[in-house]
Amino acid sequence: MDDWKIRELIAARSMAINAHDVEAAIADIDQDVAIYELVPPLAMEGIAASRQRTVDWFATYSDGPYWQDGEITVISDGDVAFSHAINRVTGTSSSGDQVDMWFRTTPGWRRRDGRWRIVHDHNSVPFDPASGKGRLDLEP
Amino acid sequence: MDDWKIRELIAARSMAINAHDVEAAIADIDQDVAIYELVPPLAMEGIAASRQRTVDWFATYSDGPYWQDGEITVISDGDVAFSHAINRVTGTSSSGDQVDMWFRTTPGWRRRDGRWRIVHDHNSVPFDPASGKGRLDLEP
Repeated sequence: MDDWKIRELIAARSMAINAHDVEAAIADIDQDVAIYELVPPLAMEGIAASRQRTVDWFATYSDGPYWQDGEITVISDGDVAFSHAINRVTGTSSSGDQVDMWFRTTPGWRRRDGRWRIVHDHNSVPFDPASGKGRLDLEP
Repeated sequence: MDDWKIRELIAARSMAINAHDVEAAIADIDQDVAIYELVPPLAMEGIAASRQRTVDWFATYSDGPYWQDGEITVISDGDVAFSHAINRVTGTSSSGDQVDMWFRTTPGWRRRDGRWRIVHDHNSVPFDPASGKGRLDLEP
């Protein structure tokens, strides 16, 4: 049960995001990660896509993004784990808008050679079937 | 490595959905499941919420929903697993619209007393930052 270790890595990643340090933010992302991101496309694959997405994401903010982890659940056994939480991102977008949104995140983890890495990452907000809009205004 | 067993349960669940059999569709959902669904709210908890969501979902279709699993990745060790895939749902909505959408799904699994169950389920489509819309029109 390596739950504490997973929690440490999640905390380190949040700090790296808040420092807008791309390489630190992807330090625990696996080479062959499968990513389902908040924004299109449906899926991305590999560390290069993860790096580019992080660069692009940071570039949409003039101040931020600032990431706050919600209550994290970790489920692990042996060399496999997944975790999930509702997280908050705040900041000021490059167009000057205040951002304050909550979204769901589910990373999947695998340990190889003693090192845990994210091999799958799923981030999303729900969409409203009536308006068709992504709901960036929901709170837990 | 119980990957084959997880794959069997995913296939059984898809068949139950396509038969519109609510109880069979939630047969492998854990009592305390944490659900991040395609539609609001941000999160739901427990088998009763999962049952209600399934009932509500089926009720939005006059023909369907028909679920097709995409390529499934399963990562497991001991009594914990997660899987992910891009799936397709088709049918006719109760308002008469043709539905044909692809979405991302990440179930988290735990085995207790020899029985695998879904303890976490994350389903989503990306949202378009420009239009704010959930993207139901993307294909893998």
